[in-house]
Amino acid sequence: MVDTIVALGTPFGVSAIAKIRVSGPLTRTLMGRHFGKENLATHSVFLANYRSTSGKVFDQVILLFFSGERSYTGEDSMEIDCHGNPLIIRLIIEDLQLSGCRMAEPGEFTKRAYLNHKIDLCQAEAVLDIIHATHESALEVSQKQLQGTLSEKIFNFSDGLLSLLAEIEARIDFVDENLEFDSGILDKFDKILNEIKKIIDSHKFRKTLLHGISVVIVGHPNAGKSSLLNALLNEERALVSDIPGTTRDFICETITIEGFLIKIVDTAGLRATDDAIEQLGIQKTIEHIRSADLCLIIVDQNVPLPIGEIIVNELQKKVCILVFNKMDLTKNLPPNFLETLKDFSQISISAKHGMGIDVLKATIAGKIRENKFVPTATTIAINERHREIFQTAHDLIASAKNVLDNQQSYELCASDLRLALEMLGQITGQYSTEEMLGKIFNQFCVGK
Amino acid sequence: MVDTIVALGTPFGVSAIAKIRVSGPLTRTLMGRHFGKENLATHSVFLANYRSTSGKVFDQVILLFFSGERSYTGEDSMEIDCHGNPLIIRLIIEDLQLSGCRMAEPGEFTKRAYLNHKIDLCQAEAVLDIIHATHESALEVSQKQLQGTLSEKIFNFSDGLLSLLAEIEARIDFVDENLEFDSGILDKFDKILNEIKKIIDSHKFRKTLLHGISVVIVGHPNAGKSSLLNALLNEERALVSDIPGTTRDFICETITIEGFLIKIVDTAGLRATDDAIEQLGIQKTIEHIRSADLCLIIVDQNVPLPIGEIIVNELQKKVCILVFNKMDLTKNLPPNFLETLKDFSQISISAKHGMGIDVLKATIAGKIRENKFVPTATTIAINERHREIFQTAHDLIASAKNVLDNQQSYELCASDLRLALEMLGQITGQYSTEEMLGKIFNQFCVGK
Repeated sequence: MVDTIVALGTPFGVSAIAKIRVSGPLTRTLMGRHFGKENLATHSVFLANYRSTSGKVFDQVILLFFSGERSYTGEDSMEIDCHGNPLIIRLIIEDLQLSGCRMAEPGEFTKRAYLNHKIDLCQAEAVLDIIHATHESALEVSQKQLQGTLSEKIFNFSDGLLSLLAEIEARIDFVDENLEFDSGILDKFDKILNEIKKIIDSHKFRKTLLHGISVVIVGHPNAGKSSLLNALLNEERALVSDIPGTTRDFICETITIEGFLIKIVDTAGLRATDDAIEQLGIQKTIEHIRSADLCLIIVDQNVPLPIGEIIVNELQKKVCILVFNKMDLTKNLPPNFLETLKDFSQISISAKHGMGIDVLKATIAGKIRENKFVPTATTIAINERHREIFQTAHDLIASAKNVLDNQQSYELCASDLRLALEMLGQITGQYSTEEMLGKIFNQFCVGK
Repeated sequence: MVDTIVALGTPFGVSAIAKIRVSGPLTRTLMGRHFGKENLATHSVFLANYRSTSGKVFDQVILLFFSGERSYTGEDSMEIDCHGNPLIIRLIIEDLQLSGCRMAEPGEFTKRAYLNHKIDLCQAEAVLDIIHATHESALEVSQKQLQGTLSEKIFNFSDGLLSLLAEIEARIDFVDENLEFDSGILDKFDKILNEIKKIIDSHKFRKTLLHGISVVIVGHPNAGKSSLLNALLNEERALVSDIPGTTRDFICETITIEGFLIKIVDTAGLRATDDAIEQLGIQKTIEHIRSADLCLIIVDQNVPLPIGEIIVNELQKKVCILVFNKMDLTKNLPPNFLETLKDFSQISISAKHGMGIDVLKATIAGKIRENKFVPTATTIAINERHREIFQTAHDLIASAKNVLDNQQSYELCASDLRLALEMLGQITGQYSTEEMLGKIFNQFCVGK
């Protein structure tokens, strides 16, 4: 018999409303005992008193019931929307424990949804990604994964592999008929291998999605690097300040531009010389530039200082935007200043007065799209677990192709393909182990 | 035209679920625009995608709709149960603002419930009390107030006053008929005055309900005062530790016993002498004892030290429990030790080994009930606003009675009674001013 689980689904604290979730076979009994409502239709909503085991009314709540056929978990479930008081939450949860519920483990509601075939394993992982997405593009990718884009791709691959397998097995079964070897079959292998390769490559987007696109600000000490940083950060702070309770500690030195998460790295100020004594500082700046996705070169357009050749060489290998600061002051660029940097997009701003910041942001967003730093609408960004599995499947399929190409044993080829199919099944959870599930669901919050 | 308001109803943070509340005339339009569902029946529940103004799917949510006739606020309302991700919450709330909602003020949902006659003013105040109740007995009292116990009492008083007023007005209208003066009418005044007095007295329970019953631990330095405090606190901590995310900073030095909130005050150790040089320390201890509801006198039963006469005199005026500690060691009480303290309940414990703590707790709870430190099941505990109004009403009725008793003007008597009725109407909000409402609802959280 499956347990009935209970957990707080909302953050713990004083608030207008809190939601307690219950899922499992006892749900109807508990509704009868604590609300006097046993035979509800699915998707019922009621204003009801929670009556404790000892007969006390703990709270007037909104009760929601979902029957197993149409619930998140695939089991009878109820949600208790009570007043957001830690005491009430504790009283109700402890009382439900007295009535036979046990505290849910992290991710257990979603795990049950998977075990009851309401969603597959990579959709369950998408739920985790959705809860932790810190910016729109990451959210978009996870929402798509929840809707099944990755699952669909796996389904298509499996379909393709199954039809290859059928062809191979026909040759095994009717070996006496000596079927012609169709060289077109190798192309089919290549097509699948290429597509899997593309998916494996999408893993690189995951780092960007989770941790942001790395933008480095390069410039001389007085060019206005920190004013620029502040101008970018301040706008962001103003944006969220009208939602009470919003704290955005988690973006500390990151900002969001048009839904892209951007991690800004400030470099030590550039020097005007390539003097050997400054090699160390230059080396550090070069490292930052090399690891960045995008560089903002900030120049005081009133007193432009030349940028050393070593740095310019590094910058020329990257995607850069040349930002002329202090546009409110007299423009005083020497005519030959731009020679070495002329190929970069150029923008004038006044960081101090917030002028041109919007254009700069739009330009940054444009560069991100243009250079495909994040996945596009149709792509995905698989996680490390998926990448490992896809890689193994890829190697198995490549090996199967190799066997076939060398006209070795059909059995060996078929066996590789079967293993590859099994691997892909681990992504959607068609094949799963307790250990694998434990690893996935332990990352969830309790109550999901 | 009333605005449509939006707010986060659950605490801000990463969690399984968050609830966004919307109330006002735009609700149906917004459901059409963002969920493609315009004509829902009240109490509908749907799994639906939130589609933003720019056409992006922000999240898959559970949508609840309540039509004005059956909603909390008395207006068309929807609740959006989305994934508990701060980013999703921000995106949806900002998008709803684009669609014409404005951020709700603190308590604005409940204020609308009051303005739309779904609840009266003292029920609205009960909602606030329910959210902030920190222990069961306070919760019980507020739940009753929400269900209308106080409103009912006001209704009964008003009813009584109205019938008195009718009698008085009959005498004004038919002054020529020279109606007999019925002395029984004075008894009716007294009955109402007494009942109002009882309600005014219930205000004293409010401090206890909100801040706890004050318990002082008195004893010699080595008797085990802090071990006792720890034993009481540790049990409490263990109790809540199985609800993940539970932090109970707010009780820091308070504990809950059988639903009663108890504030424990530790006193400086007693000295065995009344020596003048120790007067200051003794004075401090005496103050603590005097302001306490209940005293725990802890005695090391292995090496009992005498308690000075001054302290004993103070203790004898209070409700006390004599706690013999170190019951695991040899009992070594001098036969005459108990003489001065013999009237107190006596309990043996071992604070260090946690023995007898349960019995001690039960005894404390017994003393609280026996001495009526908290309101009983049928009483209430009015707040300061109520107390002031009741007091004014009481004075007006007393004055009306006085006028009548001295056979002065019936008009004066009737005028006092009418004023008293109006005062009582301010409690339920039958008579209210914007300033009064502002004061009440500004104490709420946003989203309620």
